[in-house]
Amino acid sequence: VLSDIRKPYLLFLGDVKEEAFAKTAFGLADWCPDDCVAQWNLPDVGVRLPLPEMSPREAAAAGAKSMVVAVAPIGGDIPPHWRHSLVMALESGLDLVSGLHVRLAEIPEVRDAAARCGRALHDVRHPRRRFSVATGRRRTGKRLLTVGTDCAVGKKYAALAIATEMRARGKAANFRATGQTGIMIAGEGIAIDAVVADFISGAAEALSPDNDHAHWDIIEGQGSLFHPAYAGVTLGLIHGSQADALVLCHDGARRFINGFADYPIVSVETAIPRLLDVARLTNPAARFVGVCLNSSKLPPHERIAVMAEIEERTELPCCDPILDGVARIVDLLGA
Amino acid sequence: VLSDIRKPYLLFLGDVKEEAFAKTAFGLADWCPDDCVAQWNLPDVGVRLPLPEMSPREAAAAGAKSMVVAVAPIGGDIPPHWRHSLVMALESGLDLVSGLHVRLAEIPEVRDAAARCGRALHDVRHPRRRFSVATGRRRTGKRLLTVGTDCAVGKKYAALAIATEMRARGKAANFRATGQTGIMIAGEGIAIDAVVADFISGAAEALSPDNDHAHWDIIEGQGSLFHPAYAGVTLGLIHGSQADALVLCHDGARRFINGFADYPIVSVETAIPRLLDVARLTNPAARFVGVCLNSSKLPPHERIAVMAEIEERTELPCCDPILDGVARIVDLLGA
Repeated sequence: VLSDIRKPYLLFLGDVKEEAFAKTAFGLADWCPDDCVAQWNLPDVGVRLPLPEMSPREAAAAGAKSMVVAVAPIGGDIPPHWRHSLVMALESGLDLVSGLHVRLAEIPEVRDAAARCGRALHDVRHPRRRFSVATGRRRTGKRLLTVGTDCAVGKKYAALAIATEMRARGKAANFRATGQTGIMIAGEGIAIDAVVADFISGAAEALSPDNDHAHWDIIEGQGSLFHPAYAGVTLGLIHGSQADALVLCHDGARRFINGFADYPIVSVETAIPRLLDVARLTNPAARFVGVCLNSSKLPPHERIAVMAEIEERTELPCCDPILDGVARIVDLLGA
Repeated sequence: VLSDIRKPYLLFLGDVKEEAFAKTAFGLADWCPDDCVAQWNLPDVGVRLPLPEMSPREAAAAGAKSMVVAVAPIGGDIPPHWRHSLVMALESGLDLVSGLHVRLAEIPEVRDAAARCGRALHDVRHPRRRFSVATGRRRTGKRLLTVGTDCAVGKKYAALAIATEMRARGKAANFRATGQTGIMIAGEGIAIDAVVADFISGAAEALSPDNDHAHWDIIEGQGSLFHPAYAGVTLGLIHGSQADALVLCHDGARRFINGFADYPIVSVETAIPRLLDVARLTNPAARFVGVCLNSSKLPPHERIAVMAEIEERTELPCCDPILDGVARIVDLLGA
């Protein structure tokens, strides 16, 4: 578990033109605004966050400890004309945090500047620790895992909303991050899709260790059991999480797996029993406690109808976490 | 796909005491005897293969190109007192091939000797190429995948037996290896459990590329969908393989997942529909063509009864590949 990322952050946007490439930046500004001191960008940027603009030197003076590469450039690489900005951050006393596939230390100027300035480079997609093979041993404490009918349907958002709601009610709950944006928000976690295949479930076990009886780990799901490329990651995460409670995340308007036009999205009522079947291998008491509907692409009248239909078919509360909150789901997690 | 391993082999046994630790050596001697020139060992060895004994120098003179570390030492590490033997092999002109978790190049004497002698080090557990995310696109040619109710139930043996039987019948068929012993037997393959989790299915797609319409890839399965540690690997392999035909491997005497006493083995009739459900995501025409029973621990009268019961319950041919061959399964693969 990465736990030496130093907050608060300066968010670097490079010169990306569209919000779709700045999902990490928006996730951080939404979910840990108190950890975001400022934004910084190149002159041609097309995206703005609701944060002050500061140079690395100004941000460091205002208390920032790390600069986050908070965007996903096309191709996953860091464009050469961004490198000078990364070096400036290091020279201003900031660590660097990146969720890209390319490693910061593979860029010679960046590696040399980090060594010269004594700063840390955090590639949150690349776990630095070794994991063990899963044991299957039941752990103490409670766990909730968000699962989905596809990638990018709101599993991270749902988990964060549930953890936030639980803490607001005074319950002991931790958000457990499994993807790069989640790790930056939490300041720790495991990029589960970057682990060697043999150790997926072992890494998931390490992510939510034994805890107090009444404590809940709210675990960010990854991929989908019904995804032709990522289902292995999802299944390993389900088995290692040993979830007591599952929440299904679903995009009400999506008809096909994102980017896989031959693969229809399964219905909520098809997904639930299949997911329970596999979850019960490592926790026979696993149950669903709700459906989180991403209704952003549904017209309002349709949204109400879709939610009512899902509630009728599943006998579970269905809510859009952004519009409705997740109180009715948290109600089902017990006193 | 590793394809630059040079055969034939000298098999190194170290000083292991039990056959259980020499599974790789026995697999090679069984399945590619013509590729095994000789065996070599330290004085204290407790295991013998049906092969002549030669030193690395003698083996090289007899035509050997590589020495295989054909045993699994306790802990997975290479004991320090074996290192001199590995260096001797390199100095005799042999490459080294290892299926252990530890990399040969991490042993300084071995790395230095390989560089000095211009010899190659093959760590078949560590894929050297990068894989892509799976596309889910259907490929040409036919594929059979062996799956199991547990690890170590005979999935590699079944796949090798089926590929051998098909070739004996004049059919175009390739064994596709996914584990270290299989890779050494085939001389190529992908250690699927050593791939980064995001790319399991992508690696499985790369393992059995487009082929002639009538050609069969016979793919070695890994793990089990019902295994608390390895199911993610299994599912990713199933999805990427897009199997037309599946063969279930089962140990008739085993009651619990090997090493996981809290996890009962599922029945054959429970396993088959669950496996079909997931296989049909990427190949809707997937079907089972047989059950391979490992009956080595069953008394003869019980073996007959168990096989008859499995045939009745599954309506599939059931055979022990070692005792019965796999002809009745291959019969179902079409003309």
